[in-house]
Amino acid sequence: MSDYEKIMSTYETTPESEIQSRIKQFQKILKREGIEGALIQQLIDRFYFSGTIQDGIIIIPAEGAPVYLCRRSVVRAQQETPLEIVPFRSFKEVPGALEDLGVRADSTLGLELDVIPAALYQRFASMLGEVKWVDLGPLVREVRSVKSPYEVERIRAAGIQVGKVMETAEKILTEGMREVDFASGLEKRARELGHQGILRMRGFNQELFYGHIITGEHSALMSHIDAPSGGVGVNPSIGQGAGFRIIGAGEPVSVDFVGNVGGYLIDQTRLMVVGDLDGKLEEGFDQARSIQDRVIEAIKPGATWSSLYDLAVSAAAELGVPDRFMGPPGEQVRFVGHGVGLEVDEFPFLAPRLDMELLPGMVFALEPKIFHPGKGITGIEDTFLVTESGSERLTVTDREIIRV
Amino acid sequence: MSDYEKIMSTYETTPESEIQSRIKQFQKILKREGIEGALIQQLIDRFYFSGTIQDGIIIIPAEGAPVYLCRRSVVRAQQETPLEIVPFRSFKEVPGALEDLGVRADSTLGLELDVIPAALYQRFASMLGEVKWVDLGPLVREVRSVKSPYEVERIRAAGIQVGKVMETAEKILTEGMREVDFASGLEKRARELGHQGILRMRGFNQELFYGHIITGEHSALMSHIDAPSGGVGVNPSIGQGAGFRIIGAGEPVSVDFVGNVGGYLIDQTRLMVVGDLDGKLEEGFDQARSIQDRVIEAIKPGATWSSLYDLAVSAAAELGVPDRFMGPPGEQVRFVGHGVGLEVDEFPFLAPRLDMELLPGMVFALEPKIFHPGKGITGIEDTFLVTESGSERLTVTDREIIRV
Repeated sequence: MSDYEKIMSTYETTPESEIQSRIKQFQKILKREGIEGALIQQLIDRFYFSGTIQDGIIIIPAEGAPVYLCRRSVVRAQQETPLEIVPFRSFKEVPGALEDLGVRADSTLGLELDVIPAALYQRFASMLGEVKWVDLGPLVREVRSVKSPYEVERIRAAGIQVGKVMETAEKILTEGMREVDFASGLEKRARELGHQGILRMRGFNQELFYGHIITGEHSALMSHIDAPSGGVGVNPSIGQGAGFRIIGAGEPVSVDFVGNVGGYLIDQTRLMVVGDLDGKLEEGFDQARSIQDRVIEAIKPGATWSSLYDLAVSAAAELGVPDRFMGPPGEQVRFVGHGVGLEVDEFPFLAPRLDMELLPGMVFALEPKIFHPGKGITGIEDTFLVTESGSERLTVTDREIIRV
Repeated sequence: MSDYEKIMSTYETTPESEIQSRIKQFQKILKREGIEGALIQQLIDRFYFSGTIQDGIIIIPAEGAPVYLCRRSVVRAQQETPLEIVPFRSFKEVPGALEDLGVRADSTLGLELDVIPAALYQRFASMLGEVKWVDLGPLVREVRSVKSPYEVERIRAAGIQVGKVMETAEKILTEGMREVDFASGLEKRARELGHQGILRMRGFNQELFYGHIITGEHSALMSHIDAPSGGVGVNPSIGQGAGFRIIGAGEPVSVDFVGNVGGYLIDQTRLMVVGDLDGKLEEGFDQARSIQDRVIEAIKPGATWSSLYDLAVSAAAELGVPDRFMGPPGEQVRFVGHGVGLEVDEFPFLAPRLDMELLPGMVFALEPKIFHPGKGITGIEDTFLVTESGSERLTVTDREIIRV
């Protein structure tokens, strides 16, 4: 068993040094923003800062040790996090806990206003009337955007997992099968390789089930989510991904698959076909890959997020496909890449007017996709790590059309 | 192909008469509560009131026709909903749209404050400063709690789907396989039968992946979610459901599986074993089933939600297992049933101090579970429809231990 296979099949807890370093980084940001304490409640943020998702609130003061107010399961939390656990039952205990940490009643405190429900915010606002509340969303995203070597290793393992899933795809794809039956085989393989199934997205109403296994003309349809593909799905309450369409020979079969190891995600898309692809679609794949090549060359610390987007858009224009890039005409999405980590919509976003700079340790998916309305999608997606001098591809499948 | 098999493998849109009747019911509630208009944004509420989940806001005035402000995909929305679609790009257009519908600037309006992010609420509050905002959460839950015959048929089909999944379970369960490998086989079967994969829960930080396929001593562990079982999961970022534990002979194998057809869910748990179960565990299953029997007899319109919970708790006390009912000692959850529909945590809740009454058309899962710390869980769960005179079971698997 390789080290990566071990990571895929082990229930491992986050090392204490990881947790301490994440909290230290976040405390620097809290101080910079003049926030005296952060109340962390969202499941994934809890996992990031503690190593466990057990129900409760992590109070991180700008200085000093955090406290995990834990409702359930206290036993599990104690096993999984190095943070101090204080069992609690009711939100009414929060003001007292803050006082114990030396936080004043008229402090500036942070809540994840981008993800906690409005009703929960109202409860805090009425319970702690003098507090000034700041949205932690962008700050949590900032600290989480730079991955540690430990995190990169998990994402790398997820890349190997997706590589193995694609080997299965090559074996099982046949003409005449339904999209959902093809998808079910890949999902099964991923689970056997330790995939947790549930993918987290931070955006309201955003969701994803493994990815988009979509074919033929259905693959050129958009959905409700912010993604450069949609597909139809098995019913209108899901409205994306694999559906009941029967896969024919010579059609684009787009396999956008999100791997997952130890909570960490990776995103890859490959184009498959049973038999031969139409020349125009072949060309579409080559165009997507050449746009990806152009952007890859420009990945390095200091490059702004939007500069990579602008580069992709210019490349698409040069290739004569500006109106079919990242969506069918009139329905194009305005990004060409997104950070991946514990969630699939992390910083950085390769999108217009974002002048933040890439930093070493950032990890993002780069997914140029060309649309052929009525025929399908031809795209490619890989996940890259920003290194000191450029980038490293973390996805492992050959960047070619897979023909079966 | 039976009618149910057709429903399972068809992308069908909700009939217009369904949508009209749901909106009419909801408008009665809006009037009763003195709310002049509702802004519906959560994905599943959008689906319920329109038949589509395309991105946007449905404005439902207390009187008159609703309008669907749709951002994407407008094309899909037009195909899937009978409501009037108005394409829109920005939240800034909302005040104008409200004015067009004759809603005054100082109205009482509703938002789903239980599920929309705090930051989104703040945006509405600053944009429409004079409006009084009311939480629509409990009102949406109220209207959705009584299912139409159309909805019941979808839930019934989901019951048949889970029945077929359990037939597969009987075929594939063997000693020595890992929980996650067993789970992956059931998940694959469900997908082939049209399962959408993603299960929706309304509660903040609540999530579920198909259910809990958990075994041996791991099945007696609780997790972060509000459920009477947890399991370990494949990593601490997921913390529930199937993990890497190897299934042994003579151990409880608890298969809690949520079926899904056309967006509608159903919940069922069966206990399996390879070989023979320990006498104490056999007894635990009989106790759970006898508690379920006692509650089933009491299901009828007019019974209060809490009366059924109280009945289950008394039955557990009479059987001598009050401290191991619905959780291990010290970690028990305080409910014995929950509504199912488009979400798995719907009204009614069979929980303490809820004096609301059951109504014909309500659908809920009833899941008495007995814990044997260090050994496992023995429980049973079925989903019931409240009829005019009593109840009807919608899950179809025999209420027995499944021995392989």
